[in-house]
Amino acid sequence: MGREKTGLRLGAFLYPTGYHVAAWRHPDTPADAGVNFRHFADLARTAERGCFDFLFLADSVAMRGTDMPALSRTAVRYVAQFEPLTLIGGLAALTERIGLTVSATTTYTEPFHLARMLASLDHMSGGRIGWNLVTSQNPAEAYNFGLEAHPPHGERYARAHEYADVVRGLWDSWDDDAFLRDKRSGLFFDPDKLHVLDHKGPHFSVRGPLNIPRSPQGRPVIIQAGSSEDGRTLAASVGEIIFTAQDTKAGAQAFYADMKARVTAEGRNPDEAIVMVGVLTYAGRTRAEAEDRVEALQALVDPIVGLSLLASELGGVDLSGCDPDGPLPPLPASNAGKSRQRLLVEMAEREDLTIRDLYRRVAGGRGHHQLVGSPEDIADSFEDWLADGAADGFMIMPPALPQGLDDFVALVVPELRRRGLVPDAYRGTTLRDHLGLPTPVSRYA
Amino acid sequence: MGREKTGLRLGAFLYPTGYHVAAWRHPDTPADAGVNFRHFADLARTAERGCFDFLFLADSVAMRGTDMPALSRTAVRYVAQFEPLTLIGGLAALTERIGLTVSATTTYTEPFHLARMLASLDHMSGGRIGWNLVTSQNPAEAYNFGLEAHPPHGERYARAHEYADVVRGLWDSWDDDAFLRDKRSGLFFDPDKLHVLDHKGPHFSVRGPLNIPRSPQGRPVIIQAGSSEDGRTLAASVGEIIFTAQDTKAGAQAFYADMKARVTAEGRNPDEAIVMVGVLTYAGRTRAEAEDRVEALQALVDPIVGLSLLASELGGVDLSGCDPDGPLPPLPASNAGKSRQRLLVEMAEREDLTIRDLYRRVAGGRGHHQLVGSPEDIADSFEDWLADGAADGFMIMPPALPQGLDDFVALVVPELRRRGLVPDAYRGTTLRDHLGLPTPVSRYA
Repeated sequence: MGREKTGLRLGAFLYPTGYHVAAWRHPDTPADAGVNFRHFADLARTAERGCFDFLFLADSVAMRGTDMPALSRTAVRYVAQFEPLTLIGGLAALTERIGLTVSATTTYTEPFHLARMLASLDHMSGGRIGWNLVTSQNPAEAYNFGLEAHPPHGERYARAHEYADVVRGLWDSWDDDAFLRDKRSGLFFDPDKLHVLDHKGPHFSVRGPLNIPRSPQGRPVIIQAGSSEDGRTLAASVGEIIFTAQDTKAGAQAFYADMKARVTAEGRNPDEAIVMVGVLTYAGRTRAEAEDRVEALQALVDPIVGLSLLASELGGVDLSGCDPDGPLPPLPASNAGKSRQRLLVEMAEREDLTIRDLYRRVAGGRGHHQLVGSPEDIADSFEDWLADGAADGFMIMPPALPQGLDDFVALVVPELRRRGLVPDAYRGTTLRDHLGLPTPVSRYA
Repeated sequence: MGREKTGLRLGAFLYPTGYHVAAWRHPDTPADAGVNFRHFADLARTAERGCFDFLFLADSVAMRGTDMPALSRTAVRYVAQFEPLTLIGGLAALTERIGLTVSATTTYTEPFHLARMLASLDHMSGGRIGWNLVTSQNPAEAYNFGLEAHPPHGERYARAHEYADVVRGLWDSWDDDAFLRDKRSGLFFDPDKLHVLDHKGPHFSVRGPLNIPRSPQGRPVIIQAGSSEDGRTLAASVGEIIFTAQDTKAGAQAFYADMKARVTAEGRNPDEAIVMVGVLTYAGRTRAEAEDRVEALQALVDPIVGLSLLASELGGVDLSGCDPDGPLPPLPASNAGKSRQRLLVEMAEREDLTIRDLYRRVAGGRGHHQLVGSPEDIADSFEDWLADGAADGFMIMPPALPQGLDDFVALVVPELRRRGLVPDAYRGTTLRDHLGLPTPVSRYA
């Protein structure tokens, strides 16, 4: 494994207000974070000071959710946020070393546009761009792009495979040394080093060439976060970072082993598919301070939002008439088989939880791993997961911003550095340098 | 006319190396300008120092041209350039006041994506964005987006009208005061101030809402540069800046009068459709120095490029076997009727020009107006066109960059300020402020 050599990989997941559903109400969080450029610029600089390998922006090309009372009380449903490709352009200008990664959908974006924008950003940033290839979970996106229905899962993934092939082909349109720019001879480029893709496939016809030189990283880094069978197949084929939500170490180990085996079976080097587990970190100087951080956010969860989230986690039941301080009502039998529902119902019975107790359990991480503790606690856990083959690194999901990132950089990063798990300074200049990923050779080389 | 009150409007057309076809070979021009972010950042800061109302980026979503020997010797055919929306993101981060305008096609871009990106940039920049609505001239763009042919002119314009309507509708998705962000009550937005567009038309079905708040300018400023009948109709309907190529003052006056009349006929205030004429400026401290600037570029025109340009201006004749220092050969009768060809042939005969002389005449401006002279000469001409109803302002097209922009800001701007034609400092913060354009009221207000 390459991870002994290169240590722990760190990404900073910058959900505007933070990942916790109530973060926007936190006193230190700008409630307009989604469209506050200064906020993002500060976060990017903080992450860069902590030598994060990259920051990460999620996306959705439609609001998520239809439950208006709950939706109007949340800031985590892509209601009011910057478009991430344009935002990354701004952050590239204000940072020097940190990688900049961005989600973009293969279901509703033309591959030529996306390949071009990502290459453009890679040039602007001196080779620091990564693309999180997503196929869109939110069916409402279809209606913004002239479709009457969201394409089914299998079709979205078939399209995504072809899309990745088209985009990588476009990125190889020009050999690395195609642009001579020889003022004396007058030759701007060498026509022999131009390649017209001429792709014709079931989903796309794209001639090319891309009208931008091959980018500083050869190609931007590709991130994939699919966890379904289709998602794992795609990640094994094209993912250079594999981002995953894993609640337990055992689950993470199983995922890790499965993905490394799949990557190997694809003929790829498993060190070149970096598995990163999402984790909400609540760091305090002491464990008690960390627990205070949790409680401060939990206390801000609006019951309407909490009930809506819980209802959705329970498989779409209706809890709108229930007393939050009472127990769960008996749930309809039709939903009883769902494993997630059973897990929550059993937890509520075992620990004698009210509805409010229960929605607080799901409000923060929403399926992602959570760590609460001192810098030593958090570093111990990272080291443990790393040593036991559960992850190559972690996508840090600060519960509230800027606090969660400030705390991580001020408290946890020094402890990770003390242990030699992360470097004191960037060694290279590109995202591939930071991650120890090779620069891909052109398909035409 | 509003122009007496607000003076002369100035835009800076930042074609990467400059507009002249040989600019990339100029000793002061970075030959990699198209993907040199520092170059663009310096240009933007220079233009801002000169209090330009805005900078302007052209675009094409495919290389332009198929004549490989000529194409490989030029840097003005969209071969190797930044994608402009991502570039503007970076420039927004590094500037404070200057407007930032960008071309994007209605023929090959989804309106939801474009509306969202432009709104995002308007938030990032504090209200400084303008969109140059183009319908794409280059038929090769079709092949990059799954089409077998470029849609015909009329169809492109019909689509563009509907597109502008969809984009403006999406920009009004949220009332200006929709986002309460009330941490105490927990209400993030007011559902009554959300508007679902639900557009269904012949070219687009777009439900909305846009997932970003209404932008600081209400809506980004719309620029239109069509000169055909269809283009003028669209500009009269939606153009807040109307950009035009006019070679003579008489032509510009006719265009100006026609456009103001059309705008008025649409029920719009003609002061809110600002006519800006493109002009290549060669400024020197003296007229002789300015002429040296011209000659320095003309001497760098590669004969292969010059012949290709001239052949295209002559209506697609083949000049590849001709001696550049000889006269024009007799041209095929089939092309003899074209007015542009006749104009050039007559000019060559009257002035006894060689082929080389002739291609130098077309290499620089390619149809745009050109001014060569001292700061006083250039200011005189601007003042004359302004007074005689030929323009509300000028889109400055520096022949080579950074020199052409540096010269303009160092030499011409002080003269324009001395005459009170342009301000010494920005008065407002948004592009609409600079241009004296009102903030549009939402369609739902």
